[in-house]
Amino acid sequence: MSIWGIVPAAGMGSRIQPLAFSKELLPVGSRLDGETERPKAVSEYLVERMILAGASRICMAISPGKWDIIAYYGGSVGPASICYVVQPEPRGLCDALFRAVPLIAPGDQVLIGLPDTVWFPEDGLSRLGEGALSFLLFPVQRPELFDAVVTGDDGRVLEIQVKRPGAASVWVWGAFRMPGRVFHDLHRLWRERQERDTYVGTLVNSWLARGGEAWGVRAGESYVDVGTLHGYREAIQLLERRPSEAPVSFAR
Amino acid sequence: MSIWGIVPAAGMGSRIQPLAFSKELLPVGSRLDGETERPKAVSEYLVERMILAGASRICMAISPGKWDIIAYYGGSVGPASICYVVQPEPRGLCDALFRAVPLIAPGDQVLIGLPDTVWFPEDGLSRLGEGALSFLLFPVQRPELFDAVVTGDDGRVLEIQVKRPGAASVWVWGAFRMPGRVFHDLHRLWRERQERDTYVGTLVNSWLARGGEAWGVRAGESYVDVGTLHGYREAIQLLERRPSEAPVSFAR
Amino acid sequence: MSIWGIVPAAGMGSRIQPLAFSKELLPVGSRLDGETERPKAVSEYLVERMILAGASRICMAISPGKWDIIAYYGGSVGPASICYVVQPEPRGLCDALFRAVPLIAPGDQVLIGLPDTVWFPEDGLSRLGEGALSFLLFPVQRPELFDAVVTGDDGRVLEIQVKRPGAASVWVWGAFRMPGRVFHDLHRLWRERQERDTYVGTLVNSWLARGGEAWGVRAGESYVDVGTLHGYREAIQLLERRPSEAPVSFAR
Amino acid sequence: MSIWGIVPAAGMGSRIQPLAFSKELLPVGSRLDGETERPKAVSEYLVERMILAGASRICMAISPGKWDIIAYYGGSVGPASICYVVQPEPRGLCDALFRAVPLIAPGDQVLIGLPDTVWFPEDGLSRLGEGALSFLLFPVQRPELFDAVVTGDDGRVLEIQVKRPGAASVWVWGAFRMPGRVFHDLHRLWRERQERDTYVGTLVNSWLARGGEAWGVRAGESYVDVGTLHGYREAIQLLERRPSEAPVSFAR
Repeated sequence: MSIWGIVPAAGMGSRIQPLAFSKELLPVGSRLDGETERPKAVSEYLVERMILAGASRICMAISPGKWDIIAYYGGSVGPASICYVVQPEPRGLCDALFRAVPLIAPGDQVLIGLPDTVWFPEDGLSRLGEGALSFLLFPVQRPELFDAVVTGDDGRVLEIQVKRPGAASVWVWGAFRMPGRVFHDLHRLWRERQERDTYVGTLVNSWLARGGEAWGVRAGESYVDVGTLHGYREAIQLLERRPSEAPVSFAR
Repeated sequence: MSIWGIVPAAGMGSRIQPLAFSKELLPVGSRLDGETERPKAVSEYLVERMILAGASRICMAISPGKWDIIAYYGGSVGPASICYVVQPEPRGLCDALFRAVPLIAPGDQVLIGLPDTVWFPEDGLSRLGEGALSFLLFPVQRPELFDAVVTGDDGRVLEIQVKRPGAASVWVWGAFRMPGRVFHDLHRLWRERQERDTYVGTLVNSWLARGGEAWGVRAGESYVDVGTLHGYREAIQLLERRPSEAPVSFAR
Repeated sequence: MSIWGIVPAAGMGSRIQPLAFSKELLPVGSRLDGETERPKAVSEYLVERMILAGASRICMAISPGKWDIIAYYGGSVGPASICYVVQPEPRGLCDALFRAVPLIAPGDQVLIGLPDTVWFPEDGLSRLGEGALSFLLFPVQRPELFDAVVTGDDGRVLEIQVKRPGAASVWVWGAFRMPGRVFHDLHRLWRERQERDTYVGTLVNSWLARGGEAWGVRAGESYVDVGTLHGYREAIQLLERRPSEAPVSFAR
Repeated sequence: MSIWGIVPAAGMGSRIQPLAFSKELLPVGSRLDGETERPKAVSEYLVERMILAGASRICMAISPGKWDIIAYYGGSVGPASICYVVQPEPRGLCDALFRAVPLIAPGDQVLIGLPDTVWFPEDGLSRLGEGALSFLLFPVQRPELFDAVVTGDDGRVLEIQVKRPGAASVWVWGAFRMPGRVFHDLHRLWRERQERDTYVGTLVNSWLARGGEAWGVRAGESYVDVGTLHGYREAIQLLERRPSEAPVSFAR
């Protein structure tokens, strides 16, 4: 059994253009390398959190031309080895994630997050159950910009409201976890639905309608989307206010 | 069970410099794309032979900067999906191959070849046994430039003579196959030997000395190393003389 | 007074795709580097001919992403220094050439050729007059694929027939030369015509209609367009048949 | 007569590594593009100041691999066209600057600055004389980290103290200007001195010793070197405190 982190880094980053590089590499905050302070790419926050939750393998899905991501991360981050898959056409988040399907065994664990977000607590992924599809939820002020997750009293996910005005929940998912077996099931469902789903939310709603089960865990405390200049500034403030309690820094 | 092809494409190609691109992408011969004749990169010959032998997953090990390989192959070749791993430092063939270890399950099959060679017959990899380490052997005029494989009457490998003047066999390996389990064993042995082996030959000799078994299959007919200008011209002649009997061409 | 070579290397090379690199870098023939035979990129033939005609400055016009050209040529070729300009959108040959306008002084000499052609004699550019727009003409079998140049008995250009079936001349231009002053005049005319001309031929016809003068010099002997697989093979044969009489090889 | 801006962007940026991109492209502050706020690369501050001082041509000297700079700037910035030259080996600032020599006519004006600095006032380059070598000086707290410029009462430069502890002046140069003729003279002197000078300061001292003249203009107000994380933060603060009084933003 391996714990895999899947990092979908194929997006164009059109909300924060022009950048001279892939948006996942925007420097945000810093890390200590011995005594020297070093700039830190935004996606390192996600990779660190995955490793903290036990990931020993990271698969990054990139689009053609985003070679700077491979140049930056190379062969491994700390204890985790990295491999790369390519999404040839910009066909959305689901297509990017499922590029990793050939690498995942049914008995593996799969961790998924977004490489242009910064969130706390750092051990959030460890709070998710291992046996089923489980979402790490964060309270946000404008849930209508995200995938709002409506749960029952027991935490069971009832519906995901994708970028819906007047969303019924302020809790949005920021990362999720599932067994490899469920990842394969979701992939099959996606294929069955003609690969129509680009967002995770609509695919999961269909999965729930067919009897699938998913859980929401309200363990998230703060969440910033660094995909815009506004979010970028927010992230800088969040990191100044809340430096890592348990600093995790992995040599690259 | 998956059949994996591992393609070590991390070498510098210093014997054929300057090229403006990775040596694995040197155009050699052509392929038909509908009615249109297209240039064909030398490494496509290996990838096609792997697919012909059943590979559904290809892992390419590249070194930093060789992004043109990823740009060329993208996400898949015909029925096979591709992923990429990175060898950060030029530490030889063994190190490059073992970058794929995290992706291979013990029950998988592993096919390995060199992406700057062209050889016949095209179905050579299918002639190798599945249960043990098995080398596809080719007769060459100057075995001292390669890994000459000395076998017993039953085909059992006795020794690999690495670039040895006066090699005892004219048969050199051009590709090989093994179960994932054996690939992991070889990896452990390599680690144990302080990752000292850069060539496959010395590692396999050590494996044999410890009781490991390997087989040589003299099914190869022609073999050209395209890593030099001389070999490049030889390959062009070989392909004119011997166009594919069973043309395999995979849309990319 | 400087002699400039302008090399339009912004085209997509769609006739010879897929190549894993810019078509101007396709290896064709070889050159000796001391005792070692090296592959030679097709565009080196043009650059060498420009230097042979006295060019001390080369300006390459590339399109975004064709960084392999800059990686290959770097800062200089032999005695000539190189600079690069960028054509952001694929707007044709004229637009690419005129990207060099800011670099050219009225008193300079301008040499222009196509970086995916191989032609003889090597000193062809030296046979062109310096005082006016002057085309180096080559006899070809299918002038309807090129810009056929119709000249009077005295060599004065009467008309350029752009890719016209049943062209009235078998002589096509393969390179040309002019004073910087004329280059600026042509640029002004092109601007005046709303940058409509993509081919050189239509622009020159308009220039002639306004009283401009141009000359055709039938000094070309052989000419191969390496922009297709067919031309690529023809070039290899031409170079085997006709190795350089006066080998020019410049260290890079 | 043309006004050229020469931008030496060939440095490795080792003081602020790892960045996933060329240090000249670090986002610092922002610019308005219509109603949308956009990230702004640090080197855009220099380019804007050059254009404000009349530059119609920008020459960027890059080192191999820094293609992201070309991808970002492309063919032009606002009214200025851009060309690129390559410094093949890391041989210092003087070597990088003099790569532009073939492009500059004696009658041209040359503006030079550092693409990882932000300074005010924005029109500083316009305050420099056109007839001679003229430095734009800024008061800094730690002149020993820079080139401190010692001037006489009339502004004539007496000496440049290169990174000297206990420097005799708090005024350091942040940019400079000269006629093309002087640029060529300095180049000849540099060649004569076996291209030994890597810093501008030692070369200018030698130039002064030979009777050359240079002037210092104390018109600079604030100056930040963004080549370190510390400077990066300082620049962000400077830009918040002092948004451009006369915003200059050029479409790219």
